[in-house]
Amino acid sequence: MTEAIRIIGIDPGLRRTGWGVVETLGNSLRFVASGTVRSDDKADLASRLCQLHDGLSAVVHAHMPHEAAVEATFVNKDATATLKLGQARGVAMLVPALAGLAVAEYAPNAVKKAVIGVGHGEKRQIHMMVRVLMPKATFDGDDAADALAIAVCHAHHRQSATGRLAAAACA
Amino acid sequence: MTEAIRIIGIDPGLRRTGWGVVETLGNSLRFVASGTVRSDDKADLASRLCQLHDGLSAVVHAHMPHEAAVEATFVNKDATATLKLGQARGVAMLVPALAGLAVAEYAPNAVKKAVIGVGHGEKRQIHMMVRVLMPKATFDGDDAADALAIAVCHAHHRQSATGRLAAAACA
Repeated sequence: MTEAIRIIGIDPGLRRTGWGVVETLGNSLRFVASGTVRSDDKADLASRLCQLHDGLSAVVHAHMPHEAAVEATFVNKDATATLKLGQARGVAMLVPALAGLAVAEYAPNAVKKAVIGVGHGEKRQIHMMVRVLMPKATFDGDDAADALAIAVCHAHHRQSATGRLAAAACA
Repeated sequence: MTEAIRIIGIDPGLRRTGWGVVETLGNSLRFVASGTVRSDDKADLASRLCQLHDGLSAVVHAHMPHEAAVEATFVNKDATATLKLGQARGVAMLVPALAGLAVAEYAPNAVKKAVIGVGHGEKRQIHMMVRVLMPKATFDGDDAADALAIAVCHAHHRQSATGRLAAAACA
């Protein structure tokens, strides 16, 4: 008998990092928890990265996921915004890797395709489909809903070649 | 009597992160150590961030600096390169902050000005001046030399208003 796999999806951002935990067993999908880790935008950068680290570490230790997935964001904005996102993303990938989890990356259109069936779509559609797929899902905002969609994407792809699952080095 | 302050300068990069530790007491400057933490470019991103985290953590624990300084890099390259640098930079700022160190940020021209007296100059000039300021300094490459220059910059600025020293939140 196969064990359920618990997945954490993370939607990184310096101001708000969304997270969502789901459980998958065969074709079934179960909502576990979701939320948003915030950093204080009046604090200095190192402190904000600490806040994200501490918040995400607490989530990983509370929900004990087996695998992690992060969106491989492509940013069109200015270099400053991209650098900020990169810094938050570095911490968002580091935390599960330090806990010994493999961390997969998915392109935004792969996440959309896994959740709404096509590679493009509005945020509203994604949120609606997250609720259709997991009726008990709750989320406190867009970032948590996106994080749940990333976790759903990984649940679909984790055993296929398209799921770019990579083993974490530190455990 | 004032105690010597030990400073770690960090020049972050996903492939190579340079670090340099100096000690400052009044106007005197003493070289302590420098080096480069490398990540395996054949490994996945989360593992590479782990390698940077583990390497920098080992340096911080071996040399026990009191304060940290990181270059506030501005990147003109493509968004992918900026995102990569941001991820490495996030880890480079997080590690000293998690160890309870305040982490200051300096613009590249502030670093140049502190080391060679003007806000522009070639890498060669910076390296030469690092050797002039600290005759015993050794470095295994450009990144370690740049990291020493960042530490020197912080030694000059740490007690003035221009040193954007910020207290770290996690300790």
